[in-house]
Amino acid sequence: MESEQLFNRKGYYRNSYNSIASASSDEELLDGAGVVMDFHTSEDDNLLDGDATSPGSNYVMSNGGGVMSSTTHLLDFLEEPIPGVGTYDDFHTIDWVREKCKDRERHRKINAKKKESAWEFTKSLYDAWSGWLVVTLTGLASGALAGLIDIAADWLNDIKEGVCLNAMWFNHEQCCWGSNETTFAERDKCPQWKSWAGLILGQEEGPGSYIMNYFMYIYWALSFAFLAVLLVKVFAPYACGSGIPEIKTILSGFIIRGYLGKWTLLIKTVTLVLAVASGLSLGKEGPLVHVACCCGNIFSYLFPKYSKNEAKKREVLSAASAAGVSVAFGAPIGGVLFSLEEVSYYFPLKTLWRSFFAALVAAFVLRSINPFGNSRLVLFYVEYHTPWYLRKSTRFGKYPILEVIFVAAITAVVAFPNPYTRQNTSELIKELFTDCGPLESSQLCQYRSQMNGSKAFVDASPNKPAGPGVYAAIWQLCLALIFKIIMTIFTFGLKVPAGLFIPSMAIGAIAGRIVGIAVEQLAYYHHDWLVFREWCEVGTDCITPGLYAMVGAAACLGGVTRMTVSLVVIVFELTGGLEYIVPLMAAVMTSKWVGDAFGREGIYESHIRLNGYPFLDAKEEFTHTTLAREVMRPRRSDPPLAVLTQDDLTVEELQGIINETSYNGFPVIVSKESQRLVGFALRRDITIAIENARRKQEGILLTSRVYFTQHAPTLPADSPRPLKLRSILDMSPFTVTDHTPMEIVVDIFRKLGLRQCLVTHNGRLLGIITKKDILRHMAQMANQDPDNIMFN
Amino acid sequence: MESEQLFNRKGYYRNSYNSIASASSDEELLDGAGVVMDFHTSEDDNLLDGDATSPGSNYVMSNGGGVMSSTTHLLDFLEEPIPGVGTYDDFHTIDWVREKCKDRERHRKINAKKKESAWEFTKSLYDAWSGWLVVTLTGLASGALAGLIDIAADWLNDIKEGVCLNAMWFNHEQCCWGSNETTFAERDKCPQWKSWAGLILGQEEGPGSYIMNYFMYIYWALSFAFLAVLLVKVFAPYACGSGIPEIKTILSGFIIRGYLGKWTLLIKTVTLVLAVASGLSLGKEGPLVHVACCCGNIFSYLFPKYSKNEAKKREVLSAASAAGVSVAFGAPIGGVLFSLEEVSYYFPLKTLWRSFFAALVAAFVLRSINPFGNSRLVLFYVEYHTPWYLRKSTRFGKYPILEVIFVAAITAVVAFPNPYTRQNTSELIKELFTDCGPLESSQLCQYRSQMNGSKAFVDASPNKPAGPGVYAAIWQLCLALIFKIIMTIFTFGLKVPAGLFIPSMAIGAIAGRIVGIAVEQLAYYHHDWLVFREWCEVGTDCITPGLYAMVGAAACLGGVTRMTVSLVVIVFELTGGLEYIVPLMAAVMTSKWVGDAFGREGIYESHIRLNGYPFLDAKEEFTHTTLAREVMRPRRSDPPLAVLTQDDLTVEELQGIINETSYNGFPVIVSKESQRLVGFALRRDITIAIENARRKQEGILLTSRVYFTQHAPTLPADSPRPLKLRSILDMSPFTVTDHTPMEIVVDIFRKLGLRQCLVTHNGRLLGIITKKDILRHMAQMANQDPDNIMFN
Repeated sequence: MESEQLFNRKGYYRNSYNSIASASSDEELLDGAGVVMDFHTSEDDNLLDGDATSPGSNYVMSNGGGVMSSTTHLLDFLEEPIPGVGTYDDFHTIDWVREKCKDRERHRKINAKKKESAWEFTKSLYDAWSGWLVVTLTGLASGALAGLIDIAADWLNDIKEGVCLNAMWFNHEQCCWGSNETTFAERDKCPQWKSWAGLILGQEEGPGSYIMNYFMYIYWALSFAFLAVLLVKVFAPYACGSGIPEIKTILSGFIIRGYLGKWTLLIKTVTLVLAVASGLSLGKEGPLVHVACCCGNIFSYLFPKYSKNEAKKREVLSAASAAGVSVAFGAPIGGVLFSLEEVSYYFPLKTLWRSFFAALVAAFVLRSINPFGNSRLVLFYVEYHTPWYLRKSTRFGKYPILEVIFVAAITAVVAFPNPYTRQNTSELIKELFTDCGPLESSQLCQYRSQMNGSKAFVDASPNKPAGPGVYAAIWQLCLALIFKIIMTIFTFGLKVPAGLFIPSMAIGAIAGRIVGIAVEQLAYYHHDWLVFREWCEVGTDCITPGLYAMVGAAACLGGVTRMTVSLVVIVFELTGGLEYIVPLMAAVMTSKWVGDAFGREGIYESHIRLNGYPFLDAKEEFTHTTLAREVMRPRRSDPPLAVLTQDDLTVEELQGIINETSYNGFPVIVSKESQRLVGFALRRDITIAIENARRKQEGILLTSRVYFTQHAPTLPADSPRPLKLRSILDMSPFTVTDHTPMEIVVDIFRKLGLRQCLVTHNGRLLGIITKKDILRHMAQMANQDPDNIMFN
Repeated sequence: MESEQLFNRKGYYRNSYNSIASASSDEELLDGAGVVMDFHTSEDDNLLDGDATSPGSNYVMSNGGGVMSSTTHLLDFLEEPIPGVGTYDDFHTIDWVREKCKDRERHRKINAKKKESAWEFTKSLYDAWSGWLVVTLTGLASGALAGLIDIAADWLNDIKEGVCLNAMWFNHEQCCWGSNETTFAERDKCPQWKSWAGLILGQEEGPGSYIMNYFMYIYWALSFAFLAVLLVKVFAPYACGSGIPEIKTILSGFIIRGYLGKWTLLIKTVTLVLAVASGLSLGKEGPLVHVACCCGNIFSYLFPKYSKNEAKKREVLSAASAAGVSVAFGAPIGGVLFSLEEVSYYFPLKTLWRSFFAALVAAFVLRSINPFGNSRLVLFYVEYHTPWYLRKSTRFGKYPILEVIFVAAITAVVAFPNPYTRQNTSELIKELFTDCGPLESSQLCQYRSQMNGSKAFVDASPNKPAGPGVYAAIWQLCLALIFKIIMTIFTFGLKVPAGLFIPSMAIGAIAGRIVGIAVEQLAYYHHDWLVFREWCEVGTDCITPGLYAMVGAAACLGGVTRMTVSLVVIVFELTGGLEYIVPLMAAVMTSKWVGDAFGREGIYESHIRLNGYPFLDAKEEFTHTTLAREVMRPRRSDPPLAVLTQDDLTVEELQGIINETSYNGFPVIVSKESQRLVGFALRRDITIAIENARRKQEGILLTSRVYFTQHAPTLPADSPRPLKLRSILDMSPFTVTDHTPMEIVVDIFRKLGLRQCLVTHNGRLLGIITKKDILRHMAQMANQDPDNIMFN
């Protein structure tokens, strides 16, 4: 009722924002009343070298009623959706408001049809449930892929050291499962498992076998690294790196075609296994988020609700990234918070719930696949901050394959002799986190005592003086720390899938464990010191080096990514205990504050800035006092703003304006004199509409008048047929006044996800502000080179 | 540099949005150049019956330079902040954008000053840390108050049944701690604890003592209820109910003075203890959120950053509500998610982190206070949905005290004979959740077997046939279920502090346990049935009735509040185990979907609507196709929009417009002919500014010209001194075009927190849309009475 009333009001028509289909049914009433007087023939073949035999010949004659206008116009083809209008080019920013409106329009249509038939009702049910379906599928696929990657990487990693004689496809641990001789302490040694030296030289001990093993280790590491970089370079360049900065950018509304495609998924999965197995200082956790997002993107193509709407698709991707972190760390709640805090841009409550569901499904699939029961071991994703600036200028950057081989070679050569760098990084972290119990055979637990170690909290056995094993371990850990820091810096920029969580955690855990052991020994030898006296009496256990390692790992990760709540929750889920949450929080907060003192950006934001993606960070506050008119274009020295008038341009003039400028859109005004704003038309849509008119509508000449108004302007009788472009006009462009402080403008852009905003003064159009203008202005205010940071 | 360039540009001046102080320094240059020619004397005492001896006599003479304007004006007093401008009346909506701008302005000032002296630097540090300080204080206070309420309510609850002879201030459990005779099974019986019958009649057993105890139970219950409702009615009417609907409304930007004040805090704390102890079917969890928010509000008055800014204060309140849920359930992560999902409106990431911190602090304080170690027992906050509509029309509503007494009497009379209704509701829930172990002495565990019960999972002992105790328990539980449902419906509307979580969970847990026992017995007697055959062989334990109770509790709570992720996380934190998360999620999702089929509102949203608060729900999607011009005022039949012109109104005309209308603000336009928009002025600010001018500026008459432009208009030489109101003009009002779909307008209002938005057509002002217009329109679209739901 409401809408019909409106429709009858003179001069105002329903024109839902780009809801072309619904508008057309309303306007047919009016347009149908116009009379087709004659068919203009094509005078200019350059413009209209088109199908004169096009199906557009169902012109209707006037039914006699209605107003006989003096102008001629045809039943408007443009009122039907023009194919391509409303889609985006690669490397462009989406318009969130328009996408959300499109989705609501689609939803309304389905709802209106749903009572028509049982089939339509089923379709509407399918549509309503497709969101849950797609996140379930994404969760299942992410969990399965993560399990696969785990198993394959484990196997390949053990191949570097030896081979299982019974069955090639068993890794070291599986190979020895069947062995009868295995005791708990010697569970890694069994006759079925042969090292390469044992296989080739026939002997397991001695310097010759050591060198043989060393050589084979380097050989396999280099082969894996070479294969990985080759696959990435040839088949899917987007598969390199962790992918999180790009996913952040995509989620903020940027289009990077193919970044989440099936090729990227396939190559990333395979090369991730190879890269992890090659022993490079990288983690698989970040790339797992990328893999999960690829799954989400691919499954969203099964559902038109998500495949045809960029905003809705991003809801699925948010849920997918939660599933990715969930499988990476076995932490579903932490995954949801990671998605919320770190990667997502638009995160409605519905997405929160779906993310949680996807994360749970993925975690359960992984748990049921993983035969080792250690899926909850792996931790997080971080690195040091400063090195980032180094990497940009290495000369090797031009030769990615050579670079990878070089780094892999150094890693392999240096890593092999030190047990702490040779072993799997997640296992290293696990060992560092674990306190010494009686069953612990680790070198780290060789304290001087008749018992083999002290089991904290459980036995409450006292701290002990360190034995020679501990001293040796500390030296090896120090070397491993230096090695890890250096190699991680150089590894993260390589053109292979590379995550930061595990290496950063390893660095933090090594440092934390070293400090923990040092404090423990201090407390043992100097228990009368003031700091220890109160709570550290002789014969009691007061220092837990494993806790120091855990806190160190969290702090290092927090410093690199600047994650806060999600990091604490992930570590809490990993270690399972509220008791440690206070030291963890203190460590994460301190590292964030220390990091912020050097620069407020986390590693992902730095990466986004280095790559020049147009990302408007929601966390960074805009604190300057500039006004909209200082940021808008045209500046004082610029030529005037390129605008279109609503009814006195010809097709030729319009094409001229489009060809002379490179703007993505043009404001439409009433007239040059009044400068009163009518709407906004996108360049892409205008081009497509003219192209479409050339093909489908006859009589459109270069001299045809273009009009954006509801009715065609009054024209002389002999003028060519006019071109109506109202359907591509955005009648509700966002406007701000020239006095609006930029902090408000930035807020509007962030919260509504705008692409551009028009600036008016006392009702007259003055200029335009685009997302890029804002990013450029922010860079300028931060004394950065504004032209360097823009994506081309 | 940037801002000075701008300043020199002709015709445009910096006028930061209400940043009056900074603007004044810029404009002094210009205004100082004006010449004071004469001092007009007060001609109209009605308007300017003011202090002629006011300190406003430091008028400056022209320094000779500058433009000699033909008009006369004084150095502009209005460029100084006018006291009261920028504050809000009670029951008004705040302007989020303006508040955030004010805060950034304050922040900039402190930052600019910080290098001046060590004192200013300290102040800036204090300012930067005040956010952490205030949430720490709030967490500490909430935890302490929650502990206090726990202990006091426990003690008062036991007073209903008896008294500790040794020490009056011990509750039943504490009283018996010192007793030597206590075994684990009989831990509740000891000679020091006397029931009232034992104390008065001298005998503990027999029908006489039973009636005596019954009578004393009712007596105490009625006394507590009477005292509670009396205190609430006399001292703090805002202390009744759970408070969560009002807190949601306040967080969405509404002002309710005194709702979070110290009186409310004091009375709510005391009456909450009394109400819980009176045995009414209510929980203390919701009110604890209110108590925590009161703490947050009171502590925010210590910090000007928060006390003077309504938007910043709401950040503290969000954190406080997380702390409240954290202490109510011992679930810090659940508290944060509850704040995010259920109550908060504007929730930046900084608040996420601070909420987490506040929740942790509060949980740790509570844990260290609570001597019973059961702080993690208490659960949630819910009720049935439909009854809500009943309560509105009871005739008792007019007599709150009588109503409370009546409900309390019925509760006490009916509750006493049934052990499941007599006992503390949280203890009941705990008993229902717990599975039958060998140590369990509960009636629910009297299975027919030589062992006293079956301990699920640990012993893996088989399901057993139910004994007479179980059958008796089931009947009592059924009666308790009916009783709880009815009493909770009537209790939640009483004028005492009343939470919904615990009663709802109890209802769900009772129903779940009954179903659980039924399925268990079915499985025992019919283990050959198809559903049981696969996984329920003879002699195995396949049904866990406690899990059914837990799932039922979560489902009932989920149905009432429509919470999702936060509910699952809270129950997960309470029970500590990812294993149950899948049945929990399934139950919560199902109950949400079933609930949504009856109506999409949760209990809090219903309450908000019943009370008519202006709350724009972020969860509810606006799906209609109306356009802005259909919602805006004036409608077609209305008188034209009340507007102010920028430079041709007199003070008298302005006062006339203000007195004739009741609008909260007026658009300012260039002229009636052009209808081009200049800005927006609030009614309250205009009134205050005129009042201020009357007191402080001489020569302002009723015939004085009012101008909003930068320079005074050209006036005849004998006209009275003009009144400049530019400083109260909002130069950047939000505008939308008349063709903007309402879905976009609603989105803008929600995301930016607007109060009003102006509507233009082709650059001309057409109308205005306020938050109330939107709510009224939404009610209309939902076929509700639009006038009934508005707050007056």
